[in-house]
Amino acid sequence: MEALKEKIAKEGQAIGGDIVKVDGFLNHRIDVAFLEQIGQAFGSAFRDAGANKILTIEASGIAIACAAARYLGDLPVVYAKKAAPNTMVDGFYETEVTSFTKRTVSKVIISRSYLGPEDRALIIDDFLAHGESALGLMDLVEQAGGRVVGAGAVIEKEFQGGGARIREKGVPLVSLAVITSIQDGKIYYRED
Amino acid sequence: MEALKEKIAKEGQAIGGDIVKVDGFLNHRIDVAFLEQIGQAFGSAFRDAGANKILTIEASGIAIACAAARYLGDLPVVYAKKAAPNTMVDGFYETEVTSFTKRTVSKVIISRSYLGPEDRALIIDDFLAHGESALGLMDLVEQAGGRVVGAGAVIEKEFQGGGARIREKGVPLVSLAVITSIQDGKIYYRED
Repeated sequence: MEALKEKIAKEGQAIGGDIVKVDGFLNHRIDVAFLEQIGQAFGSAFRDAGANKILTIEASGIAIACAAARYLGDLPVVYAKKAAPNTMVDGFYETEVTSFTKRTVSKVIISRSYLGPEDRALIIDDFLAHGESALGLMDLVEQAGGRVVGAGAVIEKEFQGGGARIREKGVPLVSLAVITSIQDGKIYYRED
Repeated sequence: MEALKEKIAKEGQAIGGDIVKVDGFLNHRIDVAFLEQIGQAFGSAFRDAGANKILTIEASGIAIACAAARYLGDLPVVYAKKAAPNTMVDGFYETEVTSFTKRTVSKVIISRSYLGPEDRALIIDDFLAHGESALGLMDLVEQAGGRVVGAGAVIEKEFQGGGARIREKGVPLVSLAVITSIQDGKIYYRED
């Protein structure tokens, strides 16, 4: 997605050798008009995936998943939570996810009420780095007896291996920008 | 908002005397078509508020704030975070917020890059209970030298006093449904 690379060049920031900061339009401050373009891109990419539900993890995936959903016939969005609120009384699926940027391991859960064997889930997230979030969501879908029909990331950092891990599982992956390396503050992309 | 009361009656659940569970369409599973109606309602309510930015707190406020933003001329959305990721290197405003449903006290932060004295912020959130989240966001805006021009909640639980605390500060508040009490599994609303 050319517009995304331009946006990253203009408003993003490379930090060290492995971090791309997009807090200015995606991860802290959200540019909702640009978010719309991202939603449209996922809508085109997954039109024929046969998904009946979009899954993501709180917090930074939520806005992106909702934007994508509106371009996929208003699919329901379910976001995995990092803690069970006291309103979640019906039981849940649970898995562990390592956050690369926060350097934490956290449990994430989805209520049994909103994920089941009938589900054909499309996983959407902001970043695909080591793949921990996506693989965690895939684990939750497996536990529920459902199927993952696709995975979409806004920004994939190919050199961290998450993309390969997802493709190994036979899940079609679409990343709107694929970064091959970050060197001296410059971001290199895989050619389309 | 009549459609919201109907949605709560159909898909929501009263738990005990003070909790309304709307995980089925707003807080865990998101009904994106209905979210659109919520965004529209906030758009009408705050058309003339003069906001230049929408503020919310991760995670459950994000989708709602983005929906509202699209009906307010694509205002940027900034969501307060509950932990500083290692990409946040420019300093931040910080305050403490008590979560009613999770029974926790957590620090929430907004980067100094995305909040400043020029800001006229509209605060949007899913629930208004004791008002902790909204007052926390108001504190952050004050720290930044900005101004809060309005606050919107999808569901206000009037009996928990948050609405009164916000109005005391002179901030115009719009809640799409105002619950006066919850008794024996039945939800009572303030008449419009």
